[in-house]
Amino acid sequence: MLDQAADLDRVFHALADPSRRVMVERLSAGPASVSELGRPLEISLAAVLQHVQVLEASGLIRTHKTGRTRTCSIEQAVLRSAESWIAERRTLWERRLDRLGDYLGGTAGPADTGPVGAGPVGPHTNDPLKETR
Amino acid sequence: MLDQAADLDRVFHALADPSRRVMVERLSAGPASVSELGRPLEISLAAVLQHVQVLEASGLIRTHKTGRTRTCSIEQAVLRSAESWIAERRTLWERRLDRLGDYLGGTAGPADTGPVGAGPVGPHTNDPLKETR
Repeated sequence: MLDQAADLDRVFHALADPSRRVMVERLSAGPASVSELGRPLEISLAAVLQHVQVLEASGLIRTHKTGRTRTCSIEQAVLRSAESWIAERRTLWERRLDRLGDYLGGTAGPADTGPVGAGPVGPHTNDPLKETR
Repeated sequence: MLDQAADLDRVFHALADPSRRVMVERLSAGPASVSELGRPLEISLAAVLQHVQVLEASGLIRTHKTGRTRTCSIEQAVLRSAESWIAERRTLWERRLDRLGDYLGGTAGPADTGPVGAGPVGPHTNDPLKETR
């Protein structure tokens, strides 16, 4: 869903503010009106509305207005896309660590094999841990 | 690990930039030097260094210098903390949807039970879907 860089920019930017995270937290328990979202925050209604706009522009929430009440709810798929982006990078890194463990466990290891992070290991170096699949 | 709001602010802010995400992506395959990180990006070395500083300040990466080379690597626990923050909110929301499904499946439902997001449902309303555990 969030395959475009600009979308992820907006989602992570939206999550980088503590007031907006309080709002997402509240909305994860169910839909809420804008004034309900603002209640735990010591900020003006105008500021609450701005935060709601940032969240809506990011796709993390959607809103709809009935009479004078604007109700907000979580857009689960967007939350999941941001989570997946992080999870995929973390998983790659963990697989690398696993391969390092296998490599060190399976060989005596050359004397110059330092710990992870001991030196630059670029995609073009002859890295025994390089993804081969 | 990231129990303080300011930490999550910094992590999500760091991830809100496409160049920094390219760097995290590269680092998820293994440690890299600053110049290696900058290679796929059409930006100055000064700009690369600034991005590295933002990433390091967020805790997402750590760096160490050997001679003239600064090597960067992922700080997996911080990546995981950001992922967990999102996952917990998403899970709460999904549990709510599950309860809604159970509720609608188990009863004929009162006439005024609208679809999810049809009206403000605050923590103080008499919400049949409220977490009871």
